[in-house]
Amino acid sequence: MWESELQNWENLLPAFREYRNEFQNIQHLRNIGSVLHWDMEIGIPKDGLAERGDQLSFLSGLAHKSFISDPFRKLAERAREENSKADLPGKSLRERELHLLFKDLDRSSCLPISWVEEFSKTTSEAHSIWVDARKKNDSSIFLPILEKIVGLVFQKADLFGYSTEAYDALLDEYEPEAKASDLEILFSDLRKSLVPLLAKAKDSEFPFVGNFPIDSQIPFNKSLPVLLGLPESGFRLDASAHPFSTSLGSFDKRITTRYEDSDPLSSVYSVLHETGHALYEAGISLIIGGPSPLKDSVSLGVHESQSRLWENQVGRSKEFWEGVYPIFLEKMGIKESSLPFAKLYSFVNRSKPSFIRVEADQITYNLHVILRFQIERAIFRKELALKDLSKAWKDGMKDLLGVDVPDDAKGFLQDVHWSGGAFGYFPTYSLGNIYAAQLYSAFVQQNPKFPEELKKRETSSLLAWLRKHVHSKGRSLEAKDLIREATGEEPNSKYLVEYLGSKIKEQESI
Amino acid sequence: MWESELQNWENLLPAFREYRNEFQNIQHLRNIGSVLHWDMEIGIPKDGLAERGDQLSFLSGLAHKSFISDPFRKLAERAREENSKADLPGKSLRERELHLLFKDLDRSSCLPISWVEEFSKTTSEAHSIWVDARKKNDSSIFLPILEKIVGLVFQKADLFGYSTEAYDALLDEYEPEAKASDLEILFSDLRKSLVPLLAKAKDSEFPFVGNFPIDSQIPFNKSLPVLLGLPESGFRLDASAHPFSTSLGSFDKRITTRYEDSDPLSSVYSVLHETGHALYEAGISLIIGGPSPLKDSVSLGVHESQSRLWENQVGRSKEFWEGVYPIFLEKMGIKESSLPFAKLYSFVNRSKPSFIRVEADQITYNLHVILRFQIERAIFRKELALKDLSKAWKDGMKDLLGVDVPDDAKGFLQDVHWSGGAFGYFPTYSLGNIYAAQLYSAFVQQNPKFPEELKKRETSSLLAWLRKHVHSKGRSLEAKDLIREATGEEPNSKYLVEYLGSKIKEQESI
Repeated sequence: MWESELQNWENLLPAFREYRNEFQNIQHLRNIGSVLHWDMEIGIPKDGLAERGDQLSFLSGLAHKSFISDPFRKLAERAREENSKADLPGKSLRERELHLLFKDLDRSSCLPISWVEEFSKTTSEAHSIWVDARKKNDSSIFLPILEKIVGLVFQKADLFGYSTEAYDALLDEYEPEAKASDLEILFSDLRKSLVPLLAKAKDSEFPFVGNFPIDSQIPFNKSLPVLLGLPESGFRLDASAHPFSTSLGSFDKRITTRYEDSDPLSSVYSVLHETGHALYEAGISLIIGGPSPLKDSVSLGVHESQSRLWENQVGRSKEFWEGVYPIFLEKMGIKESSLPFAKLYSFVNRSKPSFIRVEADQITYNLHVILRFQIERAIFRKELALKDLSKAWKDGMKDLLGVDVPDDAKGFLQDVHWSGGAFGYFPTYSLGNIYAAQLYSAFVQQNPKFPEELKKRETSSLLAWLRKHVHSKGRSLEAKDLIREATGEEPNSKYLVEYLGSKIKEQESI
Repeated sequence: MWESELQNWENLLPAFREYRNEFQNIQHLRNIGSVLHWDMEIGIPKDGLAERGDQLSFLSGLAHKSFISDPFRKLAERAREENSKADLPGKSLRERELHLLFKDLDRSSCLPISWVEEFSKTTSEAHSIWVDARKKNDSSIFLPILEKIVGLVFQKADLFGYSTEAYDALLDEYEPEAKASDLEILFSDLRKSLVPLLAKAKDSEFPFVGNFPIDSQIPFNKSLPVLLGLPESGFRLDASAHPFSTSLGSFDKRITTRYEDSDPLSSVYSVLHETGHALYEAGISLIIGGPSPLKDSVSLGVHESQSRLWENQVGRSKEFWEGVYPIFLEKMGIKESSLPFAKLYSFVNRSKPSFIRVEADQITYNLHVILRFQIERAIFRKELALKDLSKAWKDGMKDLLGVDVPDDAKGFLQDVHWSGGAFGYFPTYSLGNIYAAQLYSAFVQQNPKFPEELKKRETSSLLAWLRKHVHSKGRSLEAKDLIREATGEEPNSKYLVEYLGSKIKEQESI
């Protein structure tokens, strides 16, 4: 293992160790920030919100200042110099680590304070304007400030630097080294295959009736992370308005879900999704040694692949449900007659084109993302003016999903991302789906007995495989290289199309 | 109000404002530490404990270093100089604030790193030795390290400085400006009156039978802080192994309780007690302006008085129970026949001499504390060698409570405090009881209708009075002066004795 090599030679590299110690302190500040965030989301008293905001901005300021400080950069420079001179095992990995560190440092230092303040002020203002515009279904309220945000994001792209197009610089924040032109090919393949499939997609004919009290939903949901391999002593599951997963420390993962008393499966899929994220973070934490820039997730796309794989490839499979169905019924206190297996299975794999991304099924979801990618890229290639955004959106939805978007509230105003200036983020959702299908396919090819194991609620071989091929890599490889090494192929949408195609076929036969 | 005066003149005192801004940052660090602590107590995953310890020690180190840093001291010195030169309203209060600040600073800076490290190492080692000794009921395991701790605490007293006796320096950490000789008089009066009362004290003849599921206990407990005046949007109630109250911010108070399914009143009294602490902290936070050394609790004794007053004077009164009894039964799902009013009321006011302080009733509790005070003072006057501790304890218990302590596990090994080097802390428990009775008596004298209001669950006049006479004072007065100004008398045990006497009398007549 690469990390043990590093560990053994650490004592011979005092400057390296010293920079790592300081990095640990910065990591403490970041993890402490996560504690504050988590607490804020799961139930801070309302009156405490304002001061919590102050605490968080004070803390993140402290972490940022410590990170970009001269003394820390000097430490890192000494570590780099020391490593280049000493011919010790693990040298190239340390080079990779320091390369990542300096990339992160440059990223964090290149934005002038004036830009940071302007951006923070504008996006915070934009958030309430967006809420208002969506509520009133009036995009004209939002467009002027969106224009300002796009201008600031253009500036950021210039400050980050890029060789081909500005959008590459934006992508790089979330999916390092990804290129818009590569994504264009990947997504274009996916689109071409998905759109014809849609005609055959089938909505569920099973409407949920009845009430599923939240308290009765909790025990089954609490058992899921453990079933997937998260140690019971290493996580907490709570409820929050928006489900999320976060690391408060190496061995302290927090998951949240949202309970709906009209649908007992909504919370289940959030838990499966967030557990996938938590398992990735937990796997990274298992890498030997303290915090380092290598000991982190490689990209949001890979992060998302880990959540999607457990949520979809595992959690929407027949074998998974064959394994947990009796437990699900018993713990939830649901009678088999009111939720027969076939109906449940059909329900979790239903598909129907709709307007809203966050409510979309696993098949149409990617088309929502592809639309956003096309639009974002066009904006940052200056091929689309914001005044034409509404039309571009409606045309795209018609084209990709065959639906007629009635208004902007159900159109481009639906997502929060742009009001926060997060351009380049959306594509990572579909990259996650593409990676998940490709990784799972490679795994099953090597472990053909897994579906049988899954029927017995046995998931350890999958977790072991993911730890070996994904989690334990940390950031030692770029996402693209990680996927290639794990699966033997360049990232491609073939396996996702196959997976989704099989789901549609199954639904047809029900 | 004194604080509004300060506020108005702040702009004319730029150095003062600058020091206050930096103080705010230090307060952020302390509050953030409280978030981490709170989370650790209410349900951190077990595997996260070790790293949480690292995060906390990193954070408290950071707060400590920022506080005692040269730049901060220089800011404070400039503020002091500025204030002494400018003849502006509020001058003497700012003098008081800066006096407290420099006292805190000197306190925090006078202990050499070597002492702090030695003390921290020794007490952390002592904790597990103490656990072991108590478990094995073998004080010989614990005495050697206790000897070492006492030696270190003697050193601390010398470093803090004192004029009459070392124990005064220790007391000052928890009850600023308290003197052992004054406490001796106060406690001696209390002892003389209490011991004869004990003969008439009566244990409850009502044993709880049945099971009170924890979930059914929660709603009533959640309603209590609101009933006492804590805003619903400003607190959270959770469960923890040891009940506590903490401030995560000015308007974010957290309370915990411990639920026992064999006794539905145990959690109730913890909630009343901790709510009292939280109301004090919330009242202090209402003082105008940001954090300052004045905007803090004046002493642990006064802090404890606020918890005891709500727990005992209010929470064990007949009027309180007349007001909440029907709600208590309904929310807890208890039938009146299984817990008749008279039995419940007698149960919450029961008294019986016993070995263990934390299980003691409101009457005998103070005698447990007086014993500890006598012993601690004797140790630090070098009148008691640790080898004689066991005998001194047993003699004292016989003398004060009339019980024969069978062994050291039920004797001097019962409390955690000494293993942590906390000498001088115990007396604040009884000071709290003394202050509580004296404050409540003064309040009722001025508000004779309060008992009638309480029957209607109306507590706002009491909270308003406490805010005016205690909470809003912050640290502007020393505890002794605060009590005198609030009640018109020097602190004395007369009202506590009266209160406890009336309780015993009531029990007799049942």
